[in-house]
This record gives sequence, C-alpha cells and structure tokens, in this order.
Amino acid sequence: MSQKYEPINSLSSPRFTGVRTFMRLPHVRTEENIDFAVVGVPFDTGGTYAIGTRFGPEAVRSMSALLRPYNPALKIDIFEYCSGVDYGDFVVNPGYIEDSYQMIEVQLGKLLQHQVVPILIGGDHSVTLPHLRAIAAKYGKVSLVHFDSHGDTWDSYFGKKYTHGTVFRRAAEEGLVDPSRSIQIGLRGSLYGSEDLKEGENLGYRIITTDMLKQMSPDELREAIIQRVGDNRVFVSFDIDFLDPVYAPGTGTPEIGGFTTYEAQQFVRKLTGLNLVGFDLVEVLPDRDPARVTSLAAANIIYEFISLVAWNKREKGV
Amino acid sequence: MSQKYEPINSLSSPRFTGVRTFMRLPHVRTEENIDFAVVGVPFDTGGTYAIGTRFGPEAVRSMSALLRPYNPALKIDIFEYCSGVDYGDFVVNPGYIEDSYQMIEVQLGKLLQHQVVPILIGGDHSVTLPHLRAIAAKYGKVSLVHFDSHGDTWDSYFGKKYTHGTVFRRAAEEGLVDPSRSIQIGLRGSLYGSEDLKEGENLGYRIITTDMLKQMSPDELREAIIQRVGDNRVFVSFDIDFLDPVYAPGTGTPEIGGFTTYEAQQFVRKLTGLNLVGFDLVEVLPDRDPARVTSLAAANIIYEFISLVAWNKREKGV
Amino acid sequence: MSQKYEPINSLSSPRFTGVRTFMRLPHVRTEENIDFAVVGVPFDTGGTYAIGTRFGPEAVRSMSALLRPYNPALKIDIFEYCSGVDYGDFVVNPGYIEDSYQMIEVQLGKLLQHQVVPILIGGDHSVTLPHLRAIAAKYGKVSLVHFDSHGDTWDSYFGKKYTHGTVFRRAAEEGLVDPSRSIQIGLRGSLYGSEDLKEGENLGYRIITTDMLKQMSPDELREAIIQRVGDNRVFVSFDIDFLDPVYAPGTGTPEIGGFTTYEAQQFVRKLTGLNLVGFDLVEVLPDRDPARVTSLAAANIIYEFISLVAWNKREKGV
Amino acid sequence: MSQKYEPINSLSSPRFTGVRTFMRLPHVRTEENIDFAVVGVPFDTGGTYAIGTRFGPEAVRSMSALLRPYNPALKIDIFEYCSGVDYGDFVVNPGYIEDSYQMIEVQLGKLLQHQVVPILIGGDHSVTLPHLRAIAAKYGKVSLVHFDSHGDTWDSYFGKKYTHGTVFRRAAEEGLVDPSRSIQIGLRGSLYGSEDLKEGENLGYRIITTDMLKQMSPDELREAIIQRVGDNRVFVSFDIDFLDPVYAPGTGTPEIGGFTTYEAQQFVRKLTGLNLVGFDLVEVLPDRDPARVTSLAAANIIYEFISLVAWNKREKGV
Amino acid sequence: MSQKYEPINSLSSPRFTGVRTFMRLPHVRTEENIDFAVVGVPFDTGGTYAIGTRFGPEAVRSMSALLRPYNPALKIDIFEYCSGVDYGDFVVNPGYIEDSYQMIEVQLGKLLQHQVVPILIGGDHSVTLPHLRAIAAKYGKVSLVHFDSHGDTWDSYFGKKYTHGTVFRRAAEEGLVDPSRSIQIGLRGSLYGSEDLKEGENLGYRIITTDMLKQMSPDELREAIIQRVGDNRVFVSFDIDFLDPVYAPGTGTPEIGGFTTYEAQQFVRKLTGLNLVGFDLVEVLPDRDPARVTSLAAANIIYEFISLVAWNKREKGV
Amino acid sequence: MSQKYEPINSLSSPRFTGVRTFMRLPHVRTEENIDFAVVGVPFDTGGTYAIGTRFGPEAVRSMSALLRPYNPALKIDIFEYCSGVDYGDFVVNPGYIEDSYQMIEVQLGKLLQHQVVPILIGGDHSVTLPHLRAIAAKYGKVSLVHFDSHGDTWDSYFGKKYTHGTVFRRAAEEGLVDPSRSIQIGLRGSLYGSEDLKEGENLGYRIITTDMLKQMSPDELREAIIQRVGDNRVFVSFDIDFLDPVYAPGTGTPEIGGFTTYEAQQFVRKLTGLNLVGFDLVEVLPDRDPARVTSLAAANIIYEFISLVAWNKREKGV
Repeated sequence: MSQKYEPINSLSSPRFTGVRTFMRLPHVRTEENIDFAVVGVPFDTGGTYAIGTRFGPEAVRSMSALLRPYNPALKIDIFEYCSGVDYGDFVVNPGYIEDSYQMIEVQLGKLLQHQVVPILIGGDHSVTLPHLRAIAAKYGKVSLVHFDSHGDTWDSYFGKKYTHGTVFRRAAEEGLVDPSRSIQIGLRGSLYGSEDLKEGENLGYRIITTDMLKQMSPDELREAIIQRVGDNRVFVSFDIDFLDPVYAPGTGTPEIGGFTTYEAQQFVRKLTGLNLVGFDLVEVLPDRDPARVTSLAAANIIYEFISLVAWNKREKGV
Repeated sequence: MSQKYEPINSLSSPRFTGVRTFMRLPHVRTEENIDFAVVGVPFDTGGTYAIGTRFGPEAVRSMSALLRPYNPALKIDIFEYCSGVDYGDFVVNPGYIEDSYQMIEVQLGKLLQHQVVPILIGGDHSVTLPHLRAIAAKYGKVSLVHFDSHGDTWDSYFGKKYTHGTVFRRAAEEGLVDPSRSIQIGLRGSLYGSEDLKEGENLGYRIITTDMLKQMSPDELREAIIQRVGDNRVFVSFDIDFLDPVYAPGTGTPEIGGFTTYEAQQFVRKLTGLNLVGFDLVEVLPDRDPARVTSLAAANIIYEFISLVAWNKREKGV
Repeated sequence: MSQKYEPINSLSSPRFTGVRTFMRLPHVRTEENIDFAVVGVPFDTGGTYAIGTRFGPEAVRSMSALLRPYNPALKIDIFEYCSGVDYGDFVVNPGYIEDSYQMIEVQLGKLLQHQVVPILIGGDHSVTLPHLRAIAAKYGKVSLVHFDSHGDTWDSYFGKKYTHGTVFRRAAEEGLVDPSRSIQIGLRGSLYGSEDLKEGENLGYRIITTDMLKQMSPDELREAIIQRVGDNRVFVSFDIDFLDPVYAPGTGTPEIGGFTTYEAQQFVRKLTGLNLVGFDLVEVLPDRDPARVTSLAAANIIYEFISLVAWNKREKGV
Repeated sequence: MSQKYEPINSLSSPRFTGVRTFMRLPHVRTEENIDFAVVGVPFDTGGTYAIGTRFGPEAVRSMSALLRPYNPALKIDIFEYCSGVDYGDFVVNPGYIEDSYQMIEVQLGKLLQHQVVPILIGGDHSVTLPHLRAIAAKYGKVSLVHFDSHGDTWDSYFGKKYTHGTVFRRAAEEGLVDPSRSIQIGLRGSLYGSEDLKEGENLGYRIITTDMLKQMSPDELREAIIQRVGDNRVFVSFDIDFLDPVYAPGTGTPEIGGFTTYEAQQFVRKLTGLNLVGFDLVEVLPDRDPARVTSLAAANIIYEFISLVAWNKREKGV
Repeated sequence: MSQKYEPINSLSSPRFTGVRTFMRLPHVRTEENIDFAVVGVPFDTGGTYAIGTRFGPEAVRSMSALLRPYNPALKIDIFEYCSGVDYGDFVVNPGYIEDSYQMIEVQLGKLLQHQVVPILIGGDHSVTLPHLRAIAAKYGKVSLVHFDSHGDTWDSYFGKKYTHGTVFRRAAEEGLVDPSRSIQIGLRGSLYGSEDLKEGENLGYRIITTDMLKQMSPDELREAIIQRVGDNRVFVSFDIDFLDPVYAPGTGTPEIGGFTTYEAQQFVRKLTGLNLVGFDLVEVLPDRDPARVTSLAAANIIYEFISLVAWNKREKGV
Repeated sequence: MSQKYEPINSLSSPRFTGVRTFMRLPHVRTEENIDFAVVGVPFDTGGTYAIGTRFGPEAVRSMSALLRPYNPALKIDIFEYCSGVDYGDFVVNPGYIEDSYQMIEVQLGKLLQHQVVPILIGGDHSVTLPHLRAIAAKYGKVSLVHFDSHGDTWDSYFGKKYTHGTVFRRAAEEGLVDPSRSIQIGLRGSLYGSEDLKEGENLGYRIITTDMLKQMSPDELREAIIQRVGDNRVFVSFDIDFLDPVYAPGTGTPEIGGFTTYEAQQFVRKLTGLNLVGFDLVEVLPDRDPARVTSLAAANIIYEFISLVAWNKREKGV
C-alpha cells in the first residue's frame, strides 16, 4: 500500500481543531489504499418512537476527537497495521425507506468491491438491512453478531415491513444472514407478548438475553459467539441501546437494566480473530443526549471495531 | 347544544394536575356538541432537516395548561360561546407519507362532517396537505392564510413530491386551495435560488415577505388578507418558524430575523370575522426547545385560534 | 368483570400518539371493573431541598409510553389477568400540607372502598402519609416495604412535623404501619448525626442500609422482607433516590453511591406473592432530569408494581 | 460612615473567583455603615404552577459577577456614593407560608430599623407581602410600583388567601400600600374572567397593561408613575415575568408577548428621584433557565435598583 | 479561475449528511482558485470570564448546514460570482497566547498572500490581534468596523496586555488599524469606570453605543461608517455579544439590552461596496448555547460576510 | 482551639438558603483555629480539550449544600474533632500559567505555614503542580496518591511543558514528589502510543490501571497504597475523570469504562490513617454537567477528604 491514511497527530495540533471527522482521520472519498472506511448513514425514517438519529454521525464524529491511536487493551498501535479514512456520509432520501435502502446498498457496494471493511454509523437500525444486502451481495450469507436490547425481529410495525424493529426478520427472510450461525446478545425489556423472544428463535437466531449475559463472563460470551459463528464471515451490528439508558440516553427506545460501557468494551474486545467483514453502530440520537455520553460511548465502541480490524491485519494479515 | 365541553377550572384544581390535554379541555373523542376540536397530528416523516415534531402535540399540550379562558385582547370569554374538546391524536404511520396522508384525511373528514372546526397540531408541515385534502373534500377549494418563514412551494426534495417543503405547490396543483385568493406571510431566509420566491407567485399566491411585513402595521396586514380572501372559506396554517428562532428554537429549519410572539399575537388577532374553517400549527420540535418557549408560544397561538372560533360564534353565530 | 381496561395496542397506533396516560391505559375516573388504578399525586410542598415533583406524574406518564404489556422477567401478560386505568391526578392544594393530606386521603379512600390497588405517583415523599392514612382506614395497620436512600424518620424539619423527611416517624406514631413488621431498604449518605439511623430502629423499623444491601443477593433481600412482613398486608413505598444519582438525577435530595436500575428491578421483582395492597413511587423531579432517565426508570418500576398485581391475580386470584 | 463596603475589584481578581455574592459585594451580616443590603428570600411555597424559585438568589448571585460598578446610563459610579453588602439570605420555613411570613418580616424589620434600603431577591411573589408588612411597620402605608405580567390581585387560590397570586389584594386589605397612589405595569395574558383586571382597579390600583405600555415611551411611563406616587415613599416590586418568556424563561408562569430587557432597563432607569425605600425582584426559577438569561436579566435589573439608590444619595443625599 | 469551489447542492443530498464544513463548502486546504476561505481559529485562552470558544468553529459549521446559496436581501447568487472553501482550522497552542498569536499570523499570512478574503471564526476576541497583524503586514494600516457590546480597549487584565479585552488598544498601539478611520458599534453594559468609553475615544476610535444605535436607521449607520472608513481597506470584526443575550446566550460575557438578529442583518448588509479585506466573527461559546441559537446567528452573520464578498465581485470585480 | 468553625445547622435553616460555601461552612479567610480549609483554585488555562473548570469551585460548592456532618461509613461526627472554613478562592491569572503557578504557590504557602490541611478544588489538573510546589516547600518531597484515568506524565503538549497532561512528570522532575513512594490509580483509555504507560513507570510511579483495579477489592487497594507510601507524608490528587463519564460527564477529557461513585467512596475511605497533608479534586467542568451529577460526586469525594482529616484528628490527634 503506497499511501497510508491515519489520524492527525493530536500532540502536534489540539484535538479541538479541524473539521470533525471520525478520530481525526482524513476525509477522503477513496476506496483505494484503505483497510477500513468509517461512513455515516444518517437515515432515521425507520424509527418508531423518538427520532433524530440522522444527526448520529455528526455527534459521534465530534466526540471521537478524544480517541488516541494506541489501544492498550488489545496492545495494538492501530495505524501501524492499517490505513483508513472517514469516507463521509452516504446520501439518503429522508422519508423514503425503500429508495434509501437502494441508495445505501449501491454506495456500500462500491466500498465492498475494494475489500474495504465498512464501519457504518447510523441512523436508526433500519439501515442494517441495506448494509446486509450489500454484504450478502459481495460475500453471500453471513453470520450476524448483534448487540441490542431488542431483537428487531417483529414482522411489521403498523402494517409495514420496513422499520427499525423488523430488520433481522427481513434479513433472515431475504437470506442475507444465516440465523443458525448468528447470535443476538442483550435482549431485555417489556415485550408486546410472550412470543416476541420466541420469534427470533423460530427464525433460527440464538438469543442471549440481558439476564443471561449478566451471569456470563466476557470469555463465556466469546465462547458462545465462536461456537455459533465459527470461521464464517461475520457482520457485527451494535445498537447503542444495548447499553443502559444512563450510558446511552440518546437513543430512540431505551430499556433500563442494561450494560455499562466497561462491560461493552470487554465483550467487544472478545471478538478478536473472527472473520469480520463489516460493522455498524446505530441508534445514536444526539438531541436526547445532553451530556454527550451516548456519542462518547459510541465513538469508543467504533474505536474497538477499528482495533479489531487492525488486530486481524496484524495477526492474520487480513 | 345540550352538552358543553370546557376546560377544568384552574381556580379549583391546580393547573399542574391531571392528564395533559390542550388547555385542560376534556379528552373526549366525540364529534357531537362541539364547535371545535383540538387534534394532534404527530407525523414528521416529511421533515428534511431536524426532526422529531411527532412529539409536538405532547409538548404543546403540556404548556397549554397555563392558558385561561378569558381572552382580554378580543374581550371574549371563550366558553361562553362555544364548546370544544381535546380529541386526542390522529393515528399515523411513521415512515410512510402517502399512507399517513390517507389516514389523516379520513380521520379529519369525520370531524368535518359534523361542522366541527379542526384545530390541528403537527407534526411537520407535510401534514397540511391531508388537512387541505379533507377540507377541500368538505368545502371545495379554500383560501389559505399561511404564516411561515418558508413558502414550501418547492417542486420536490431529493426527487420526491411529498415533503414538508413542497406542500403548497401540491395543494395548488391538486386544486385544494385557490392561490389567487390566498396569501403567504413572513417568508425570509437564504434561498436555493432567485426563482424560489417567484415560484410561489407563479402558482398564484400573494407573498408578503418578512422584510415587507416589518414595515406593515397589524391593520395593514389585515387589510391585505381581507383583500385577498374576502368571504371565502379560509384555512389558516401557522408554521412556528414564522417566529424568530429565539422565540421558537424548537423547530426543524429555523431562520433568523423573524417575528416576536407579540407581533404574532397582533397579526393573528386581526383574523376576526374571516370565514374560518380550519387551522393548523406545525413544526414544533420539543427536543430542540430546552426552555420550552416554543411550545409555550405554540399553545398561545392556538389559543388565539380558539378565540377566533368563539368570536365568530358570538358575532356571527357560526 | 364485564369491562376490561387495558393499554392501547402499540402495534396498531404508534406509542408517540395520544394524550399521555400511564402506559397508554385509558384515562377513566372509575372505581369499577378495575384491579388497579395509576394515580398522580402532584404535591411537593413537603420538599426540603430541590423542588418541583408536582410535575413528576406528567414526566412519568410521558416515558411510560415505551412500556409493553408482557413482562418477560415474571413471564406474565399483564392484561390477561387484570384491568386497570389511569385515574388521573388527585386534586391537591399546593402550599398547604395538612389540607392536601385530607384531600388526598379522601380521594384515595374512594378507590380503596372498591378493593382497587392504588399505584400512586408523587409528588414528594410527604404524600405517603395520607396514602398510609387511607390505607390504614381501610385495612388497619399495614407492613411497610420502603426503598429509599433516606429513612425519613426525622422528627421535624425547621420545627414542623409534616415534611418529606418525617413521614415514617409520623406513620409509626399514628399507628398506620407496624414498624415491627416493616423494613426500610437502601439507606445511605451523610447524616445529621450518629443517632439518625438509630431513630428508625428505635421506632421499630428494620433497616437494611445500602452498604448491607450491596452484599446481599436479591433472594437474600426477599428472604429478609418475607421474614419481616409475612402475610401481612403490605404497602410498598419507593423513593426514586434509592437509585444512584446517575440513574435518577431528577430528584430533590440525591445521594451518591446508590443502586442501578438493574438492581432495583431484581429487588422489586422479588416481591411476588406478598399481600400487596398499595404502592407509591415518589420524588421524581423532571426539571433536574435533562436526559429523562429518572422518569424512564420510574415508569419501569411502576410497571413492575403492576406486574406484581397481575402476578397475584394469576397465582392467588387476588 | 467610617467603613465602606464595595465589590471586589474585577480588574485585580477575575470575576469567576470567589464565593458567589451579589456583584462580588462583601458578604457581611451587618446593618451598620451600609446604604443598601442585597438579601435573598428563597421561599417558594406560594407558587401555583412551576416551582423552585428558592434557588433564585443563588442563580442571580452567580450571574451578577459580570456587573461592573459604573452605570453609564445613569452616569454614576455607584460606590462613590454608597456602601452596600450581600447580607445573605433570610431564613424561611419551606412549606409553611404564614410562619415564613413572620420570619421574613422580623428579619427585614431589623434592616429597616437602620434606614438600610433592602434589595430583596425572591423567591416567588408571595414574599412581597411580608416585605410590605415590614416596610409598612417602619414607614406606614407606601406607594407600590409593580412591574409584572400579572396583577396578583386574585382573592384566593384553591380557597387559600396566601399565594403568589393574591399578594396585592392582601397588601391593600392590610393597609400596607395605598392603591390610590400605586401603579401596576405590564399586565397581560389570558385571564380567568373579564373581571380579573377590574379587580385590581376596584382595589384602587392604576393598571398599565402591556398593550398600553407598548404604545408609551419611557418618559410617558415616568410621567404616569410620578403622577401616581408623587413624593410618597415607594416600594418597587419587579416580577421577572414582566419580561417576555424568551428573556425570562426561568419563571413559574410565563406569559408570551412581553418586554425585552432593553425596554425594562429604560423603564426602571426612569425611577430616578423617587422616594425609594425598598425593592424586590421575584420569580426567578433557575431550573427552567437553561441558558441562564433569566438570572442574567435579574442581576442587571437589581443593578439598576442599586444605581437608583446611589443616584438618590448623590442627588438628594439620601 | 479554472476551478470553482461551491457548496454541495442541498436539493440533491440532504443538509444533514456529510462531514460538517461551513455551509457545506468543500474542505480543501488551498489558496488557489478561491475568493474567500472560511477558517476556524479555535483559540480561547484570552477569555476572562466564561470560556470554551475553542468549540465555536465546530458549532457554527454545524448550524451553517441550513444556509442556501441565494441571498434575497442582496439579491445575489453567491457562487455565480465567487469561489470559496472551508479551509479548516488554524493550529493554535491552547494556554499560550503569544505563541498562538505567531502561529495564527503565519497561517493567515499564507492565505493573504494569495489575495484571498479570510472569513475567520473564533475563538475569543483575543484572536483579532493576530488577524490584524497579518492583515497589516499585507495591506498596511486598515480601517476597523467593529460590532461589539464591549470596546475591548482596556489596557490590561490582571496586569497582562494580551486578553480578549485589550485587543483594540493593542491594535492601535501597534499601528495595525487607523483608529481615526475606524468605528466601534454597539457598546453597552456596566463599566469599570466612567473613563472606559473615553479610552476608546482617546485612542481615536469613533464609538456608537447601543443607546445611540437604537435611535439610528441602518442607512444612518451606513452613513456613519462610510464617513469614517471611506475607501480605506476595511477589516470587519463581529463579536457575537453585539447581539442581545437571548439571541446569543452562548458567549463569554453577555450584556443585556442588545440587538436582535434582524437588526444585525440590516446593519451588516449595509456594508456593501466597502473595500473589505477580511472578517472575523468571535466569542461563540457552544457550551452555553443549549438551543443553538447563538451558532445559528453566527452562521447567518458569516453568510452575510460571504455575500458581501460576492457583491463586491459582482459590482466591482474584486 | 478557642474558636470552632463548623457548618450552619441544616435542621435550623434550610440547605437552600445562604451564600454558597462548601458544605455551608463559614466563609472566613483565616489561617487560625482551623484544621482544614476548603479552597477553590479556578484556573483552567492548562486544559487541552474541553475547558471551563474555572467554574468548578462554584458548582461543587452549590451541590455541597446537601452534605451533612456525620459520616456513617467512617462513623465520625466531623466537627466534633475538627474545625474548618471555606477560605474562598485563590486569585489566579487566566491565560497565564506560570504567573498563576506562582500566585497559587504563594497563597497556598500561607495556609501551610499554619499546619492547615488544604482541600483544594480545581480548576484543571495543571494546578496540582503549584499545589505540590507549596507542599514540598513546606514538607519536602511527599508521596502522591493519584486517582485519575490519565497518568498526566506526558512530556509536553504542543511543545509546552505546563499543561494539565504533564503535571506528574514535572512534579517528579522538580523533586516535589517521590515517585518511588507514589501511586497512580485508575489509568485507562486509548493512548498516543504504547510507551505512554511506561513513561509513568519510568519516572518511578507505580501504576494501577482501571483493568487491574476492577479485579481488586478496596482492601487490596489499601494494601497496595500503604505498601507504597508507608508513613510518608501524602498528597492526594483526585481527577474527577477517575469516575466513569456517566458519573462525571462534566469534565474535559472523559474516558469510558470507569468507576462508579460507590467504588470511589470505598477506595477513598480506605485512606484512613495515612499521613495526609493535602488534597485536591480537579477537572470538574460544570458547563458539561447538565444533571449536576459531576459536582455532586465531587462534593461527596471532598466530604470524604474532610472525614479523613477528622478521622486522623480523632485517632492520631493530628
């Protein structure tokens, strides 16, 4: 790789300077010479309650200025092993879900053609469907590792198939993911009915609820994930409402009794070595995040995603 | 009228008690025995920038608890002359504009069948189209009195015909309003091009910009309106961004250099005696309204609408 | 029961629509055909520090829209077993404690006459005294299960007997509760003097401090409660400041070092099978809750109360 | 006067340093050697809607750090002509109005015995009654100059005589003020009935509504005031809701269509030369003042009060 | 000019998409082919009271997404006549004023070498000194048109010569501006002493206070400015606290009784045809701007600056 | 000690009354008759990211009103054993680090001459350097117990030696602390490079990272600290960002995955019996603390510091 893209050095220019890009990466719309691209997907028409995640990418970029390039947990200097850019945002059509799905799929497809690992910032969870469509178009059916307080496997909302609460049923129906090699982690909260959880299982997903996970160590979670996904290609989808509402008040449908950022870090760091082909982090709603803790948490989770890409580069050369 | 619906008396129970309805009116889903109905239309899929006006009706109801039944400006004790309810909200389908338009039109039609004057709280400005469709279905083509910093007569946004920025072109095209007897008041702000204002005029609307209105007295505005609408049936649409952003920060596309609430009160009070068949107030976005001044202003503007209904009852018996 | 009252179905109309009632229950002021009634008690004159809990019921209702009818922790579909309404708020007289006490007691008495389980939303903790007066008038002396960071057993504040800090001394003195069969849970924070905790014990209460509870499992807490209350009738009073200030910043006298919502859920869910005759949740102060996590937590705790009512209906028929 | 009390010099120590006192005045509880004393009266039990003005004095002190000693409008270097302290707060008994009234009256009486001009920061408007009781005990019946969007001459709220909305009826009934030589300025907003405004006039007050004042120059207002009060002793009571809600969102019962701070400054500066014996500024509610503009405005209005004291010292020697 | 730089078209991609640059201009660090460059100068070490204007450029960029390319007040389609970029931020050294001054001067000098009109976003007002140093190095002594509630001509703060309150004394002393052909507009607020205003005049500046300006029309202000600056080269410095605190709460030292955004627009638009060589807008402090009205106002004022550049291009070819 | 300084009794005057001093202690600038003095050090020029900790002392004082004099964890009635005052703030020179360092050192030295234990409230962490200079001037080289998410042992920021990120390298270099008998606790977060942690160790500090501490009991931490500091004189420096960002959002450089206030309380209470000669608590940034949890936490941590002073008085007579 002739050109290396890496963040501006924050010891030579203060972190509060400059146009806000993720982690102070260069904002270049290239697919060349990069291992990963951070991309905003500011689409929120799929939200069924509080709304405004179209400003999620802006807020996450803002707080990501605090990130530094060495990850002491994984003991890795990220940009020693990889190159990446802030690709900007995909264009979407607010108010029009199916149109936007097509637009997102096309734009993401262009990145995937170049083997770039996409790291996508929503937007509401409805965007994961076009993410998976593009991923499946490139790689075929993948495994899903899904952190969320909701399974998002309802059949429809108000008679409509495409919303942020129906994504993983659609993904299964469309053959984009292999539920039998996928896992949903962190489900909790009141339900519409007793069958809600079963629906995910009927589709074939393995479900680890919050109550179950509270009894597991990070290593046990890793074990459960690996048992499920093996060496399949993996797409990681992280809904920020996996976190407890005090760690992520800025989200559309918060559920109390969730996880801390410390726990989330431990869990995500256990994904090292998986065959990771893409990531998204969704449902950051800045207008309900007065202390900015949600976007700070999101920026840090994405940082772990990038670290995982670097780890794979170092350890596996891919 | 056998039954009279009026607010709870705030001198016998404190205004901070009770389930929040507009102005502490009874929440009854009736079309009988009422002159007006306050209705929420919490639909915001048409918004092209900041979003979340689906929580507008809740916020406006909350601040409306401060309202009292005697309007000293119009010298009228509202409920001496009329009866009204908080009808609740129309059901909508978030994320699906055309479906929601149909749902709104049907629900509003039911109220209009009973000669009730609807007082509708958005939601973004895209809801005015189904409002006008129902109005036109009942009354035929009406005059529009439209307070707004934007003309909302663009042809399309991102290739789409239905958004909050294209409503009054659609309304003209669909023959719902008679632009030659309608008026748009308060336009200002930077534009996409020099033709933006002309487009409204080409459709036939009369436009009074903010710069023009700043030079006019309330009486001159009344004169201009009456000259335009005569004794035609009139629908009043008030976008809260007619107000300056410090009076209405909680809105999706604020434009600086606008009007105070005092000015807005003077203008709206000059609509007495018009043949008023419906009202909406739109674009209140509570998540961007930390001091709640926007929803307070909105509640007070709606209060003037109700006062106008009462005025017409007293003076004209309708 | 001929009529069943249950929430609006949130899969047919979005949760952000409608006049805000608790959990989207019908707002009906009936004592018939219901097992429980959610009631606001917006009285805050008893507060000795930050104040404004009169807006607590409004805020809790707002966030309760997120609740769904099936409780997976207790594996119960609530409205299969019971019927309930949002009864609205009791009328109170702000600024006048003893008057308001009488008003609350009378209004609550009417509900209790019909065997309805009241689920009351404060207001400051001073309202628990009239709650207990009405309860004792109906059922005689009851057991108290009291979650709180403060014992509220001071004798007086500034020479006055009725404040939010003296309630449980008054309740004991008036013979409303049986301290020897009651328990206070979660006390912590700096004290006025070494005798503060002893005062509660001198009155006969069992006290489990935060430090003690941090070493106990939910089952151990259940054990301690059951040992104390047996099959006595039980009133549950939950002060939101039991939670840590980051989970409940919106309260009048926060104490750091408290509990998470996850812990609170575990504890409250252990109250199944007790002879529960009433509940209150107090001290939610919305003006100090910018991210709305406090009212979200409160809505969820109340949801557990309702679930306990349903559980008792299913398991015990009462 | 041997000792002069004046603010810390903000050119030698930054304004953000130090324990917050009003205008950086020394915090000394003395009645000697001072012309005026700024005193907090953090009592808010009289509030009938939003509440929390007990934190008003703290917030006003905080923003008052920005004030500098030379008033260019009145062309006066305040501390060249007078000496003053921040006296701290009066002790009150929250939740107990009549008790607190007695406490306030006694404490204020002590200051008045020494000819000190009290400059009192509420608290809700209910505190003006004990202020006037102490004033009348010292000086006899005085003239009232009252800036407010409400007349506060209702007879009772919820059957109670003492609230923030009944103060000026009580003051007239108790013979504390001479309504025939008093004036209420700025009334506006919706009313409970057509008689509301007349009630103030029936008591003998002259009322200048907002609508009237919008047509008057500051000099015309001065004329009207002087015509009314002559050389009588004058107490000035300024309710911050005289200002428009965007200038004072932090208040309990805001009314739209009000005045700017610029207008308020012009009006208050016209009080030069009156026989001023005391001032209060009330109804600052910091929890609803996210941008702190309300307390900034309040600090500046109080600054004008102090300037008036200095002006009288310079011009009249008293 | 072979290459034209202009904003992304907001009718083809929504304004909420993309990395935030000013007005959606391309972020290119070029000095070629541009007429103007918008540059952030996030330095705030010179602030003497509230601080944090280092985040000003980020906040102003964020709200500038709302701007559209046609200015109807000046009847100009900006990018028909000029080309411009968002140049990003200058590097500064927080905590070190004199170092940062040198850094800013050097970086700005590079732009000026290419005849680019710099449009600079502070930062506190201390940055105007290096701006003027670079300007004077390029063009010699210039005229200053300075909108501000403070003259910033104090000699020192706490013994130090370089702060945000001493800039225009330094600029005069260093011979960067010609005070006799310069003007300060909008001064108001309490002062340290009677000589404060005179100091500016002693330096040679003409001062138009807020009280004076409130009596002037925009045309009269234009007259006064032109009389002063003639055809001299002009640097415009706009301190956002020229606006009233409700229009600009997000600033370090707000002064009540100021101007509306409507007034500011009228005044700034009157600068057409002046020989404008640079602009700055300073003192936007986002952490005190909860409703974002300050940064919205700032973005719009800067928009007028850009419009003036375009106007000069169209009318004068420069 | 003839004179005892202790807080105002909050059972006789409400905690919301009075000029805000720490814990309602008397504000007296004395060095006599006191065991400890709480002092604000509102200096924030050393901050490299978000800034505004100059308002930290004000905010901490405000929330400290909630504190009561008996500490049940240490079973000590603080003012039975010691006397203390709120000394006010040190004067500093904003924008000028080295000058301010000298000013702080001199002012602190005066307190230390009288054997007073200083309890200092920052300000950013850069102020710890002059704190240690004064301490070392009085006592010689001390042990440091340092709670922080950052080691603050970078060599320089942007070429400058004095910032909030370089303090403990400077302290070691200047011989103020003995790193070999000092300990840094709680380090975490992304780093500039792999050597960042090693640098602290190279200087001689023992480092306990967050990951390590999450596996330790409070007693094990005590063990580690005692092993390190023995009976050396100890200065305790507590950066509020030791806490997780949801417990302390109001800080300049938050790092997710941190500690709860409960954990912090347990750790700090384990410092009983150390030879404690001074404390500071730094980096509270009120403008980013909308729910005030950060300043509440800070006030409580400082309360533990005072309790430790009292404990030493009781147990050791010093």
